Amino acid sequence: MDDEAIKKRTKETADRLFGKGVKMDPPYLMWREFDRGLANDLSKFITGNLYSRTVLTLPERQMAACAMLAALRAGDELRLHVNAALNVGCDPTKLAEIFFQVATYAGMPAVNEALGVFRDVLKERGEWPIK
Amino acid sequence: MDDEAIKKRTKETADRLFGKGVKMDPPYLMWREFDRGLANDLSKFITGNLYSRTVLTLPERQMAACAMLAALRAGDELRLHVNAALNVGCDPTKLAEIFFQVATYAGMPAVNEALGVFRDVLKERGEWPIK
Amino acid sequence: MDDEAIKKRTKETADRLFGKGVKMDPPYLMWREFDRGLANDLSKFITGNLYSRTVLTLPERQMAACAMLAALRAGDELRLHVNAALNVGCDPTKLAEIFFQVATYAGMPAVNEALGVFRDVLKERGEWPIK
Amino acid sequence: MDDEAIKKRTKETADRLFGKGVKMDPPYLMWREFDRGLANDLSKFITGNLYSRTVLTLPERQMAACAMLAALRAGDELRLHVNAALNVGCDPTKLAEIFFQVATYAGMPAVNEALGVFRDVLKERGEWPIK
Amino acid sequence: MDDEAIKKRTKETADRLFGKGVKMDPPYLMWREFDRGLANDLSKFITGNLYSRTVLTLPERQMAACAMLAALRAGDELRLHVNAALNVGCDPTKLAEIFFQVATYAGMPAVNEALGVFRDVLKERGEWPIK
Amino acid sequence: MDDEAIKKRTKETADRLFGKGVKMDPPYLMWREFDRGLANDLSKFITGNLYSRTVLTLPERQMAACAMLAALRAGDELRLHVNAALNVGCDPTKLAEIFFQVATYAGMPAVNEALGVFRDVLKERGEWPIK
Repeated sequence: MDDEAIKKRTKETADRLFGKGVKMDPPYLMWREFDRGLANDLSKFITGNLYSRTVLTLPERQMAACAMLAALRAGDELRLHVNAALNVGCDPTKLAEIFFQVATYAGMPAVNEALGVFRDVLKERGEWPIK
Repeated sequence: MDDEAIKKRTKETADRLFGKGVKMDPPYLMWREFDRGLANDLSKFITGNLYSRTVLTLPERQMAACAMLAALRAGDELRLHVNAALNVGCDPTKLAEIFFQVATYAGMPAVNEALGVFRDVLKERGEWPIK
Repeated sequence: MDDEAIKKRTKETADRLFGKGVKMDPPYLMWREFDRGLANDLSKFITGNLYSRTVLTLPERQMAACAMLAALRAGDELRLHVNAALNVGCDPTKLAEIFFQVATYAGMPAVNEALGVFRDVLKERGEWPIK
Repeated sequence: MDDEAIKKRTKETADRLFGKGVKMDPPYLMWREFDRGLANDLSKFITGNLYSRTVLTLPERQMAACAMLAALRAGDELRLHVNAALNVGCDPTKLAEIFFQVATYAGMPAVNEALGVFRDVLKERGEWPIK
Repeated sequence: MDDEAIKKRTKETADRLFGKGVKMDPPYLMWREFDRGLANDLSKFITGNLYSRTVLTLPERQMAACAMLAALRAGDELRLHVNAALNVGCDPTKLAEIFFQVATYAGMPAVNEALGVFRDVLKERGEWPIK
Repeated sequence: MDDEAIKKRTKETADRLFGKGVKMDPPYLMWREFDRGLANDLSKFITGNLYSRTVLTLPERQMAACAMLAALRAGDELRLHVNAALNVGCDPTKLAEIFFQVATYAGMPAVNEALGVFRDVLKERGEWPIK
């Protein structure tokens, strides 16, 4: 794929994931403050390449991303991706269920951090409590 | 739910997940060697209660479990659950895609460990290479 | 054991652990906001079943819990459990010693986070400095 | 304390912890192959200083060490310390209980790794099954 | 080396690392509030012994320390050591590059946390943006 | 940069890092068995893009990579990169020093795993003991 096509796809995928919901500074802006060229390469690789593959639908990909970030107790990143998950139509009840399931593999500290982040994001989106 | 019903559901869910594919000693047998009562309680809680909830389908649950275990670099447990994922009908191409996506959140050591475990399990099941 | 007995034991153990000292919202309240049934099952399993076993005394169990949470750098959960440890009579000097010992197994970032949490809890309880 | 006294205490504490049970190469021997001076300093600091403090008894210290190493899924180190725990008189039933309790804070992969290591060590010591 | 010489070297190395730049309470002060003797032993071992060895120059040591702390997502400790790295003359562009490289081994959550901490420290030192 | 140039640079950097010393299957071969296109994209991004940047020299980059992998206890990946570090001319005494320094940030289990991997690689290369 040529560079223009990747740039276009990066932008489209980024918009679908991060274009609405809770307002947050995407990490891309910080990367760019350190190194503009590398920021673009990272963004094109992660968003334009990996995230734009169609083997998984975007909701399937976000379910997996949220599961991983919860298990890793990466709260700031989870905040970004739980919002993206809701943006692409993931069912909030299923997301909560995954966060409870984290108990089995990563223990209760991970469950509690993930549910706390999730509740905050739902509140900021005006979608709390889950119907 | 009464105790008999939970025992029955524990057994049914365990059979669907672990009843075929690669032969492995389930951790339950080791738990029982240490403490029979606690082993039963753990099994009933995890398999009979958490894993038998229907908010997520079993394939959805296994996709999430495999994502978490790969991110946590828990190879032995992943071996068990990637086999279970295939048993309940998860698409192996989607599982591989999730393991590649681990790169973004947990780095390449986690990707490489997960793909290695997955390839071993597929070989033992006679399902390698993925069609 | 029947369900009423487990509920009773869950409540008794929870009261001993979390009934005094620093005021914190127990995770149980958040679980319940997401799923009342699952929250009760989790609570009955962790507090009423695991934590009510008598192979370890409650102080022994809390020493182990604080050791693990410090090593895992799970600060929020440690805050809850260091307070519970003091509630059930753990010696604060021994708790501090365990947090220093974390150096050997998990490094100084874990030591520093644990001691920081511990000092905060002791201050809020009016038990700082340790006599 | 003068250097001779620390050397003596290092040796005494090391003997109590690692002097019997399962035969293993202590990490100290490997450190020394890389740097003899640093190996001695590390050993004197960890074993002669930290581990020889009397705020915790050696069995209390080993219970905490085993809890941490299980939670961190550090199997090789756990093998060393679970053997040391048995050498200084820790109750094997209490050790098993701590490994089950790891479920709450670090999830089942950590429980399964710890119980597996523990069972191996007990077998090598001829102390399996636990009476 | 005699005790006076180690104390002197501990102080000299500590001054070079932490004596200027962003004002932070060094963990040593907190250790001392818990146990003065152990605080001195820890400080003499880590700063006076390990950190004063000359196999690595101080800038090389700080590059490695920052790489590890970023990979471990130990933000508070990283803040201390990124400031120390700048104090001993590490090139900020190389530090940023290391934080981007963390992507490969520990994933983007670790990258984002490290760059965020680094940017804050540079701002407080009046050295932002990097020239 | 056009695609041919990146392919060429990917190959050159890969050869310098992994072209001699201990014989190991590079993860790239496994990636390709799962997905040829994605394997090439990953390789071009990590090796051809990130690793070919010149802000850090290759030896500086490998020192940082080894520090991170040791801290993360990622032994298989460390094996690959410690060999690459020696291939690009890193001083083995400095590498050992970094692995000892891991003690401060990630504890002794990480030190012991890293030194064990390092000693194995040095032996296979016929470069043990370090002169």
